[in-house]
Parts: sequence; structure tokens; C-alpha cells
Amino acid sequence: MSREVRVLTEADLRRAVPLDLAAVDVVERAFTALATGEVVMPPILSMAIPGGHDEVDVKTALIPGFDAFAIKVSTGFYGNAALGLPSLNGLMILFSAKTGLVEALLMDNGYLTDVRTAAAGAVAARHLAPERVETAGVYGTGLQARLQIEAAHLVRPFRRALVWGRDPAKAAACAADIAKRLGIEAVAEPDPSAVAAGSQLVVTTTPARDPIFRADWLHAGLHVTAMGSDAPEKCEVEPAALARADLYVADRVSQCATLGELRSAIEAGLMTADGVAELGQIVAGSAPGRRSDGAITICDLTGTGAQDTAIANHALSISGGAGTAIGV
Amino acid sequence: MSREVRVLTEADLRRAVPLDLAAVDVVERAFTALATGEVVMPPILSMAIPGGHDEVDVKTALIPGFDAFAIKVSTGFYGNAALGLPSLNGLMILFSAKTGLVEALLMDNGYLTDVRTAAAGAVAARHLAPERVETAGVYGTGLQARLQIEAAHLVRPFRRALVWGRDPAKAAACAADIAKRLGIEAVAEPDPSAVAAGSQLVVTTTPARDPIFRADWLHAGLHVTAMGSDAPEKCEVEPAALARADLYVADRVSQCATLGELRSAIEAGLMTADGVAELGQIVAGSAPGRRSDGAITICDLTGTGAQDTAIANHALSISGGAGTAIGV
Repeated sequence: MSREVRVLTEADLRRAVPLDLAAVDVVERAFTALATGEVVMPPILSMAIPGGHDEVDVKTALIPGFDAFAIKVSTGFYGNAALGLPSLNGLMILFSAKTGLVEALLMDNGYLTDVRTAAAGAVAARHLAPERVETAGVYGTGLQARLQIEAAHLVRPFRRALVWGRDPAKAAACAADIAKRLGIEAVAEPDPSAVAAGSQLVVTTTPARDPIFRADWLHAGLHVTAMGSDAPEKCEVEPAALARADLYVADRVSQCATLGELRSAIEAGLMTADGVAELGQIVAGSAPGRRSDGAITICDLTGTGAQDTAIANHALSISGGAGTAIGV
Repeated sequence: MSREVRVLTEADLRRAVPLDLAAVDVVERAFTALATGEVVMPPILSMAIPGGHDEVDVKTALIPGFDAFAIKVSTGFYGNAALGLPSLNGLMILFSAKTGLVEALLMDNGYLTDVRTAAAGAVAARHLAPERVETAGVYGTGLQARLQIEAAHLVRPFRRALVWGRDPAKAAACAADIAKRLGIEAVAEPDPSAVAAGSQLVVTTTPARDPIFRADWLHAGLHVTAMGSDAPEKCEVEPAALARADLYVADRVSQCATLGELRSAIEAGLMTADGVAELGQIVAGSAPGRRSDGAITICDLTGTGAQDTAIANHALSISGGAGTAIGV
């Protein structure tokens, strides 16, 4: 038994890997590497399960400067709710980038994806939102609504949050959770245009197929992060908004053009993928970011394997002796 | 801790999963399912590591009738030898086909692939070789040369084996291993044509890029299994042999046409993929197999994700309480 592989469960990972500035920083490094062209990120392997909407996705990315690369398997089985099980599951496997040997099995059931997705929102807010954010708004009332606001608060410590959702009770519950978690004022706002009007930073976190954010809600000094669309049928932000913004930024242009908000805007003939900046370029300083306090900026996040590799490396490095070591 | 995931190491799996008729039978079931069109098998995810020939492949397949599907990750890092480590590594992850939840992590480092590859050779021999095989021949002297002969012996208990390799010392060592393992006569044969001439069943197991098996070595009553070619640059069997055989069978037509012996024969204008039978069709009886004792048959094996799913299910089902159970 000359070698050990560490196995970490979801419970181990929840204890060891908080959504904090260290997580934001490591995901930011992944964006920089992605934009500077050194990342190897093959197309997603996707398997549709016959007879329904269930599916399995496999993502990976190799990032220079990270000791290991992650292969992430995500499963979505939508009959699980009836069995009392979560619909979304999966794990990440960390392999040495030098030898290809397995280093760790991170059975996170999507927890690390939740963290890296929220951390990406913080990277966008850090580099694109106005310096001063008094109020942040969120569209959607699910887990990412909570986490995106929590992550944005790490880099823009706003004093007030506005929450809009189709279901007023869920919006109220989400606002209450945010208020408790961050110790700030947080209220449900039934008028979605008022969320935009009252905020300097908003995040859309819904699985909407028709826009829930209107172009005429844009106002001077607003930053919008749209993180809900990750599939060709999804669209949260009215395409005209992308064209009207002073700056539109993609996490990955090729993905946003097929899975993100950019797709709808291209289809509407309002945008092209040419010349679109990626978030990592803004971070690296190779493309200009926000030019003034009054600029309108939009960032489109579809999620990348590079983020997975970054958070998985981070998780292993900070988890110490947690989990189970298996001699192999 | 309502649920457990079982983690099995290579050592656990070597103890629990022998190359036996049970392994052959389960792989045969996978072939049947593959040929009857019910298997979901997406294209391979492949990631090339910059700066060399290192690579990572991910395969999967869902087979109706198997409780779980496997995702197999294979890594090939060719600088490992200098570090005293094996070049080929990897693992299989078993997911419930009903819920998508992880059931087991099989850290086999390629052992289960070795077994399922040899088992496929036995399926080919069972359904295509003549009923009576006195002598079996093998081209190549590596691990699969040993395992293919061992697997074929399960279904055609021949009394003698002939081994050809470029390196006479390696051929002698391989023959000695086979003789010891199976308790039969096994000899190294320096003339490759004599191996064919003296055998009723031969298996080619080399990574050859130029044919090592000639068409004019074919004779009445010979079955050839070619399992070495699994990449577009490989070719073990002279293309004219495929055209001259009474029956050519692919494990998967689409793969053999791009990665197997069929590719070279198509490029030479001697074969087309149209009308080629798959091994599973022969097993299922939906395509004719060997028509007479004197027929010449060739089976082209490139390896499929369906075999991985089959052997991984088998491994978990027969491993009892082996390995480590982790509460998740």
C-alpha cells in the first residue's frame, strides 16, 4: 500500500469547503487560465436516458498551474423526488495532471458545483459591478439565489437585498434566509422591475425559457449576472438587453453562444459572438472591463469544466485529513 | 447515513473477479443488447494532454437489463515508467440506472478492462470458431495474448497453443506462462505462417500499424479474432483477408469502420460497412454465424462501453462485502 486515494463524502465537503473568498479566488484563477488559452477543455459527454428527461453529463478540464484535473459526472434523474431522493447527484474525481493516477474521489452530490457556480458570480461581480453596491437584487428563489447573493456579498458588501420570485411565499422565505445568513436587510419584491430599479447589481438564477428580465429595466450603473441559462432552450434576459448594455461578457464565448443568453441574442439578430470578451480576459486585464460608474454591464455564466477542476483542487488542498483514505 | 457506496481497489477486484465463464456470459449479454439496439452508448470523451501522447478517455453505456451503468475513465501517461508507475490507469464508477446515484467506485487501474476484453474474445470464439479446436494460436506476447488464450480455452478447451512474437524470448516466456496456467502444451513458433497453418483458432493481440497476419495464411476451418486495433492508425490483419473470409463480424460496425481492421479494408476498397454483421447479432441469432466446419471467419474487436457496463455490474454483484463501504 504505497499510495492512498482520499474519499470525501458530501458531508465531509460541506464541512471542509465553505463559500468564501478563497473559493472565489481559485475560481478566478480558472477563468484567467481559460481566457489565456492554456486550458484543455473537451466537449461535454452527454448521455440521455431513454424514456424521459433524465441525463448524465461528464465534464473535464486541464488547467496549467493546477496539480490535478477533475472529471465531473452529473446525473439528473427527475423521478427521484417520488422516491424521496434528490434529482441531481454526481461526483468529481481528481487525477494527477502529471501521472493520471486517481488522487481523490469527491462524492459531493453537486455541492462543489453549487460553490463554484456561486464563486463565478462573485468573480463577475468583483470585476464588473460598480465599486459601490448598496442594494443587490436576485431573480429566483432557489439555492443559487441564496448562494449568488452570499457570494456577491463577499466582494460587494451591500446592505440590502431584493428578491423576486414567481411564488411570493418562496420569495419571502429566500429573503428571510438571506437576511439571517448575511445579517442584512432582505425583502421580497413582487414587482420584478422594482428589483432592477432599486439595485446596482442583480443576478438572475432561474431556469426560465422565456425572458424574466426586460431590457427596459436596465439603468445607468447596473450590473447583471445571468447564471440560469445553461441549455439551448433557456433564456432569462431579453435579447435586446445584451445589445443595449455597454459591455456584455461571457464565461466562455463558445458555450454562451449555444447554451447561454448570447444564443437567444444571436438568434434574434441582435448580437454576434465576434469580439465578445470572456470574463477571464477582464480578470487578466487583456480586455477592458467596466469603463465608468454609470456603465451597464451584463455577464453570462454557463459553467465550465475549468471551474470544476479549480474547486476540486481547492477542496482537496484544504480538506486536510477529512474523509477516508484507501490504500491502493 | 442511510446509504453506502462501496469502494473496491485493484487488489479487491483481482481477488473477486476472475476471468471465467460467468464473466464471458455477462459480456455476451452486453453484446446481445448492443446488437438489438437498446443500448445507449455516447461517443467517447477524449482529452489529449498537451506536450506529448498522454491522454484521458471517458466511456459509458446504458444497457437495459443491467441495474447500473458504468462510467469508465482511462488514463495513459507514458512518462510514468520513468517514475516506476504503470502508464495505464483509471477507474470505473457504477451509477444506478434508476436513480443516477453512485453505487460503487471500482479503482481497477484497467484490470476490469483486461477481463472484459478477454471475455469478448471468448464470446467471439464461442459463436464463430469451429466446434473442435485442437490448437489455438496467438500473435503477440503481452498480457492480452495470455488472457485471450485463457478466455478462448474456457469455450474451446484446446490441447495446444502456439505463440508468435517479434521477440523470441518474450514469445517463449508467454508460451511458458500459458502452459503453466492452462496445463496444456504451449510453444513459441518463430514462423508466423506456421501458427495459422497449425491452428483452428487464432487471436491477434498486437498494436501493429502494418499487418502482421497475411491473407494467404487463411485456410478452411480457421477462425481469426483480431483484438489489437482500437485506433485509426492500427492494422493487424491484411485487408484482403477480410474480403476473402466467408464471414467478417464486427463488435460494433461504426467503431470497426473507424478504429478496427474494417477501416483499413474500407480504405483499400475491399470492404464496405454495409451489411456487416455485429457479434451480438450472431449471439442473438438475428444474423447467421459460421455456416460450416470449413468456413473461414474473422471477428474484429475494438472494445465497447457496453462491455465496461457489463463487467462493472458483474464485479459489484459478485464481490460480496469486499472493499470499503462509505456511508454517504
